[in-house]
Amino acid sequence: MRADMTPPTAKQHHGRPEILPTRQSYITLDEFTLESGTTLINPTISFTFIGLLNATRDNVILVCHALSGSADFADWWASLLNPPKGKPALDPTKWCIICCNTLGSPYGSASPLTYYRDNATGERRRYGADFPATTIRDDVRIHKQILDILGVRAIHCVIGSSMGGMTALEWPLLFGAEYVRSLVLIATAARQSAWGAAWAEAQRCSIRCDPKFRGGDYELDDPPTAGLAAARMAALLTYRTHQSFEERFGGRREGLDRKNGCVMGNGVSVLGGAAQTACLARSYLQYQGSKFNARFDTNCYLHILDKIDSHDIARGRCPLTDSAAVDDGEAIKMVLSRILQPTLVVGIPTDGLYPVCEQYALYEGIPNAAFAQLRSEDGHDGFLLEAEQMNQLLLLFLGAQ
Amino acid sequence: MRADMTPPTAKQHHGRPEILPTRQSYITLDEFTLESGTTLINPTISFTFIGLLNATRDNVILVCHALSGSADFADWWASLLNPPKGKPALDPTKWCIICCNTLGSPYGSASPLTYYRDNATGERRRYGADFPATTIRDDVRIHKQILDILGVRAIHCVIGSSMGGMTALEWPLLFGAEYVRSLVLIATAARQSAWGAAWAEAQRCSIRCDPKFRGGDYELDDPPTAGLAAARMAALLTYRTHQSFEERFGGRREGLDRKNGCVMGNGVSVLGGAAQTACLARSYLQYQGSKFNARFDTNCYLHILDKIDSHDIARGRCPLTDSAAVDDGEAIKMVLSRILQPTLVVGIPTDGLYPVCEQYALYEGIPNAAFAQLRSEDGHDGFLLEAEQMNQLLLLFLGAQ
Repeated sequence: MRADMTPPTAKQHHGRPEILPTRQSYITLDEFTLESGTTLINPTISFTFIGLLNATRDNVILVCHALSGSADFADWWASLLNPPKGKPALDPTKWCIICCNTLGSPYGSASPLTYYRDNATGERRRYGADFPATTIRDDVRIHKQILDILGVRAIHCVIGSSMGGMTALEWPLLFGAEYVRSLVLIATAARQSAWGAAWAEAQRCSIRCDPKFRGGDYELDDPPTAGLAAARMAALLTYRTHQSFEERFGGRREGLDRKNGCVMGNGVSVLGGAAQTACLARSYLQYQGSKFNARFDTNCYLHILDKIDSHDIARGRCPLTDSAAVDDGEAIKMVLSRILQPTLVVGIPTDGLYPVCEQYALYEGIPNAAFAQLRSEDGHDGFLLEAEQMNQLLLLFLGAQ
Repeated sequence: MRADMTPPTAKQHHGRPEILPTRQSYITLDEFTLESGTTLINPTISFTFIGLLNATRDNVILVCHALSGSADFADWWASLLNPPKGKPALDPTKWCIICCNTLGSPYGSASPLTYYRDNATGERRRYGADFPATTIRDDVRIHKQILDILGVRAIHCVIGSSMGGMTALEWPLLFGAEYVRSLVLIATAARQSAWGAAWAEAQRCSIRCDPKFRGGDYELDDPPTAGLAAARMAALLTYRTHQSFEERFGGRREGLDRKNGCVMGNGVSVLGGAAQTACLARSYLQYQGSKFNARFDTNCYLHILDKIDSHDIARGRCPLTDSAAVDDGEAIKMVLSRILQPTLVVGIPTDGLYPVCEQYALYEGIPNAAFAQLRSEDGHDGFLLEAEQMNQLLLLFLGAQ
């Protein structure tokens, strides 16, 4: 094991709490055997933390990130650390807040972008599309090793949204109530739905269309940007809503020069508000596609889509699940009933990708759960866009523990 | 003008009404000048009709089809002609029911698939991507010429869903209350939304990724099937719902051999219900993608996406629309207020593509409108899938006129 950084404890600082900035840190393990049986040699996990471990090393809040997120929660959930008003839910003077990057992500953990030594030739090669499939449970088990190395004895609360919520759900199931003391599950599900899997498949097909993809065997300096952009556009739309797009691109049209119209397909210019709207929406999506290409890798994206598709808390846990005798809905309920920790389930009523019925099923299945709605017109992305509301909900929940 | 068939009138049949089967018919005009100013030489319109024109030639129900539909409404709306129980709304003993195929569609009207004579060389060439952009208003104006040729003096009711609803909306605005006597607008909107345009753009990007697309200059025997399939998959999902997919692919899993699991990305087999669900959802989408390739052309698809993006009933109709002084919402209301015909607006509460708020806006804006909800768990496609309910609503509305 090589660790670039371990978090200081309050004791090391002689009891004077000192807020350190979050920092990307890395730990490389000797090896790690995945659920599939494949062993990763020297996998690195990147992580970020802020705040000090207390003497009992159990004041940990573990944040789990979503598909395209990184361990740097200070970047994508800044308002929970520095809210515009009121106290921060993720208060580093009280909690040691840690976020680990998932396997397969381009943000520093072992992934299609990282290198391995080829046993046959001794050469160092980039994994690319050969990076072995990983599951949400693999992430939880390898992150547990990181927390062990950091000296964490228990997690006060594990919090996750979307894929992060799937990760959060697996923590108590894999490591029990002694280790994981409470849960916050946001815009997530007990297992990947047919709907989520179908959207993932449509996105894969867009990527496969790009001739530069070459079955994943592309060069990093000439990646399949068109395919990844098309996939991201569809993904982004599943994270948003009709209403959010109307407000964003409908409302702004007053300020535009409508006389100029919009060049439609085949070079014909058509005047009118709808054409302007279409132009604005198109250029926004194109911009989002480019932005995503600048920060994400296609093989990493496909890897994580597969990981999410494998998510199913009942898989292998309920002997009946694997027979044809019991339906999966019952199996999911049986597994949820084992989660005895205080749990806050948060649903976003406008979420079109993981609709609120999925969170309601979590709430109904987990014995000690509370349910909260996050008000947002923006759909699934509400958990990022409504960070102030999220901060309030977390403050309430953490304060009640 | 060359007409392959004109509908018989009751008079021709000596007053004995005789139900003829629907038949695809074609009329080729000498020329037609599009809204853009471009003139189509010898454009053909394909259409289907059933039933006889009455003596006053005004017992016409005009059905307008959606993006991927054809003039053959007996194919995609069979239950309205032959409902499993009760009377048919589209009763050919009472009405002469006509449906015209839109410009740019692969189902027989002038389109990227049809040929034109190149003035420079005198050769006959396929339009392909050079087929000029058309608008919903072009469709209505050219279809009006077809109805004139057929001897129609007035339309009793024009009915349309989705893009067909956009077409239906333009009929009274272009040809007035004398000619168009009532309207049924289903799962449609007064103008294309930013949301609809954004989804169209994501689909265009998938198509452009396919190396076989070649900017639209592909051979018909080697079309960009992968790109069109990816676009269709995303489109299909926007026509459906989370719930419909769960019921379809969640519920069936009981009958499967779950021990076999599902091969995830990278060849790793993962057991469990979610993986099975993902496999089923994937193969369903792949099947739908192939099925669509067998019946649709990519340039036609792109052409109609552009047509829908240009839809805006306020375009050019409200002088203020084209200045920066008034917002488009007001302009839309001013134009809707001119539609004085009895109108039935039908919304599907689960519709994620043209959500019910858009139909509610139509209902609020059209002075003589009634609003009905179509109960469906399937989203936008409910207007096709709930044909019995649709039949009942139409019967009620037509009976009240």
